[in-house]
Parts: sequence; structure tokens; C-alpha cells
Amino acid sequence: MITPYFTTGEGAPAPLRTSMSGRVRFEEVDPLGIVWHGRYASYFEDARVALTDRFGIGYLDFFEKGVVAPIRTLRVDYLRPLRFRETFTVEALLHWTETARLDMEFVLRNEAREVTTTGYTVQVMLDADWNLLMLPPPFYREFLDRWRKGGLA
Amino acid sequence: MITPYFTTGEGAPAPLRTSMSGRVRFEEVDPLGIVWHGRYASYFEDARVALTDRFGIGYLDFFEKGVVAPIRTLRVDYLRPLRFRETFTVEALLHWTETARLDMEFVLRNEAREVTTTGYTVQVMLDADWNLLMLPPPFYREFLDRWRKGGLA
Amino acid sequence: MITPYFTTGEGAPAPLRTSMSGRVRFEEVDPLGIVWHGRYASYFEDARVALTDRFGIGYLDFFEKGVVAPIRTLRVDYLRPLRFRETFTVEALLHWTETARLDMEFVLRNEAREVTTTGYTVQVMLDADWNLLMLPPPFYREFLDRWRKGGLA
Amino acid sequence: MITPYFTTGEGAPAPLRTSMSGRVRFEEVDPLGIVWHGRYASYFEDARVALTDRFGIGYLDFFEKGVVAPIRTLRVDYLRPLRFRETFTVEALLHWTETARLDMEFVLRNEAREVTTTGYTVQVMLDADWNLLMLPPPFYREFLDRWRKGGLA
Repeated sequence: MITPYFTTGEGAPAPLRTSMSGRVRFEEVDPLGIVWHGRYASYFEDARVALTDRFGIGYLDFFEKGVVAPIRTLRVDYLRPLRFRETFTVEALLHWTETARLDMEFVLRNEAREVTTTGYTVQVMLDADWNLLMLPPPFYREFLDRWRKGGLA
Repeated sequence: MITPYFTTGEGAPAPLRTSMSGRVRFEEVDPLGIVWHGRYASYFEDARVALTDRFGIGYLDFFEKGVVAPIRTLRVDYLRPLRFRETFTVEALLHWTETARLDMEFVLRNEAREVTTTGYTVQVMLDADWNLLMLPPPFYREFLDRWRKGGLA
Repeated sequence: MITPYFTTGEGAPAPLRTSMSGRVRFEEVDPLGIVWHGRYASYFEDARVALTDRFGIGYLDFFEKGVVAPIRTLRVDYLRPLRFRETFTVEALLHWTETARLDMEFVLRNEAREVTTTGYTVQVMLDADWNLLMLPPPFYREFLDRWRKGGLA
Repeated sequence: MITPYFTTGEGAPAPLRTSMSGRVRFEEVDPLGIVWHGRYASYFEDARVALTDRFGIGYLDFFEKGVVAPIRTLRVDYLRPLRFRETFTVEALLHWTETARLDMEFVLRNEAREVTTTGYTVQVMLDADWNLLMLPPPFYREFLDRWRKGGLA
């Protein structure tokens, strides 16, 4: 990947990272013998949930604050196929931004540690009436503050 | 099918029926080249929604009355496979019962009108606190009344 | 469960068992806030793959011998719902039979070890031309032999 | 959408278009009450299959020629949510290119004809050994020829 999916300013905190492993299920494989391209949204989501749970910014954390953070954009780049019963890792990287959004990048690697798939999602933040938030809600600004101060490493 | 899935007493109203057609999607086909067995719950549900919408007893109709009707049992019998791009019909049959449950049978047929798959679901009725209802709610008893009097044919 | 799903004759070898754990994914949850009933076929399959891989009778083992073992019947009984992020275990039990079929039972339990879901699948065995086998293929008879002699415990 | 997903040179043939309609299924809706973002890959694929079947360049047409055309990139932009039982249309547009790839754009609209979702997929062409083709295979070049001459309008 030559062009990064996200660029952050100089001096921005390093991305937060979480990895998890998975294994290709029979039902995820299409008639070509490879994981159907639409399934990767699930693999990304598994890693998204792992990362956001770990840092206290998950779906339910937002929900408690009356905020929803739906996906605004999804992109997936398929470099190598995955086949039935292959194990893989998914790494999620949350990139720094002070705006009311979550910029998350994903990298899948097979057992040989080859990158098979990359991608990203952008989430926006909405209030309980589904109006776009211009600024992150207080609990998320506190989270950003801890991140900037290095308290989440 | 020698043994029927459901038996109703003599003189019970005939089952209510709705048919719909579908076509096998690429993602539904497994590495064996046939529809993955777990997908049939979707085909059944499409027909369930069609039937219950038609007769005003759908998920949202129940929801408005503070009742949910979750699936209690699912059974599927796979007689012939379906392959990519095959078209098929699903028929849903609601069998008569005066208790607080929905007994629904499903029959899939391929283009040659051969039966490929049969099955059934049983749904129970719960109040808003997820307590089992012993009797159908009033709106459903009215529906049963119209059914018995032949007003739904 | 009063009535067992499968009955085996006296003196039949005990079922083979494998357990695995899982966690409810966001996409598996329906608008009622519970795992959509059709997803349990996946949970069952995860446990089926774990058990059959462990004993060398998996999809690919059959495939190498020119035999396929499609699902003939699926049944699921839903006793308690599962919700987003709940962890659970799925136990698969392969019940003894000398005929050309696999009788597998499944039991899901939540974190409190309550049984949430039970069910079974029956798989038949077909040759490469999709003709029904009346007897298990030699590699499977050897597997049955080891099982009977207690070599798989 | 200000920036188009694909740009074609001046004088390039107009994109080929196919539309189909769909309806949101219960299982496609997530706990937020909206279609789960990962499902749109299915909606796109339904429209892709409709368009490629119509013009004789479907998965099976490629397969017969020993060519596979896997997805290399997927992008989805979510503008408005879709809810349970909403009907929608998906339009697929195949954009002109003479290289060995398929550039396809997708536009979903709700009943009010508002655009809810846009996106694209890029497919590359591989030979039977999964080597990247530098030029489209002969049957596809003939298809391009008919397209350029206006024979597909």
C-alpha cells in the first residue's frame, strides 16, 4: 500500500491497535473456493469491536451516552484470497482525529504473515435524533485526551 | 413426506397459504456448489414475512400490541440441492391452532416443480417482559375468528 | 429435554464430544436485540467442524475419498435468547450409528451455563455422482472400528 | 457525489446500466434498526449479477472461458439508512475500460427515490492458474467491441 488510507498531522498520537485471530468458516467460502468478498465486513467488525471494547468506546458505550456511530464509508482491498479453514489475524488501527468521527484501518494477514486484505471504515457520530454531531461528545473528548497524553499505550 | 409436520383436529380451518419466488444468490452457494444448508432459514423467513404481512399478523403488527413471537423450533429437511442462479418458489402454510403459537410449514420447489426442501417453524408469543402468553392476545383472537369464519380465503 | 434426539442401542459406544466457545457478533443480532434464529446453523457448524476435524472425519477428509456428506435434516430448539457480546459454548456430540450417516447433537450454553439452544443435524453420505451410499466408505468404517474399541476417547 | 468514482476518456461509450428492486429482510437489520453495513455487498452483487447476466459477461460466462474475475476493491458510501421492509432499487453501471478489469458503480435509492447508498467494485481478470491477465480474453474483447459500436444499448 503506497498511499496511506488516512493521514494525520505531525505530532499526532500514534494509532491505537488491537489484533485478533480468526479462522475461515465453511459458510464464508464461495463457489470459487475463497472467502466471499462481502464477508470481510464481518472480519473488520470483529476487530473493531475488540479495539473499541478494549478502550471503552464500543457501540454500547456510545449508546449509553445517547450517541450512535454508524459506518459512513467502507473500503476493502483484496490482495490475496483466504480459503476454507485458513487461520488469519485482523489488526484494527484507530487513527487520530479530533473531529466527531472514527477513522479505522484494518489489515488481515494469513498464517504466512502475508497481507491478504486491507481496508478502512469511517464512522460518524449522531445524536439520539440521528443529527450529525459536529464535535465529539464529552466522554469521547476525555478518551482523546487520555490518548494524546499517552495514557492508552 | 409421509408424516405431516402438524396435525389439526377434524373440522379445523384449512391452512392459510402464501407463495413467493426467489433466485439463488452467489453468496448463498457453498464450496460444494449448492446452497449452504443454513441459508434456508432466510428463504423460510421471506415466505413467513410475506404470509404474515398479507394477513396483518407480521412482526410489526405484534410489536405494536406489545407482543413478540420468537421462533421456538426450526426444522429443515433437505431433499434436493439448489444451485447458483436456480429459481425456486417457497410456499408458507399457517396451520390452525387456537393456542398462543404460530405453526408454519414451508415447501420449496425448483423450476421443475420438484420439492427440494420442506420444514417448519413454531413461534411462541411473549409479552413485553418476555413472559410466555398462555392465550393469544385479543388482536390475534380476532384474526383466528375471521380465519374460522372463512373470511381470509 | 425429555425425549432424546437420538437413541442408540444398548452397549453402543458413548458419543464423541467436542466443545468450543464463541461470542455473539453485532451482525448476528436482530432488531429484537437477540441472535437471529437462522444464525445458529453457523454456531452448530463451527462445533461440527471442530469435532470432525479432531477425529479426522471432516469435510475435506470425506472429499479426498470422493464422498460428500450433506445435511439431510436440521433441527433447532430455542430455549433462551443470546444477546450482543454474550459468550457461549457449543458442544457437539456425535452419536453412534453403523449406517452411512452422521447423527450429531448440539448444546449451547451461556456464561451462566444455562442451556440456551439445542438441536441436531443428520448427514447422509453420497458418492461423487451424488448417489446415496448404503454403507459407510472404508475409511469411515475404520473410524467406527476405532471408536467402538475405545481408541478415540 | 461531487467526485465521480470512475473517469473515462472523452468519446468513451456511455456506461451500461441495469436496475433491480429489493426489499429489506428482517435478518439484514441490526440492533440499531437499520440494515447492517456489511449487507450492502449483497445488494451490490444482486445488481452485478443482473447486469452481467443480461450482457453475457456473468460469472459462469467467464468460468466457461477459464477466466475468473474476483473483486479487487469494494467501496460503499452510506448516506441514508434503510429499515426493515423498506423497498429500494439498486442500479449497477458498468463503466467503460479497455483494460482487463470491470469497473462497476452502484446506486441505491429508497421509495422516495432518495439516494441512500453508493459505491463501486473493481474486478480484475485471472486465468485458471490465478495469474493476472494483462489483456481481456477474446470473448470480452468482442463484448467491448459490441459495446463501442452501440450494439448493447
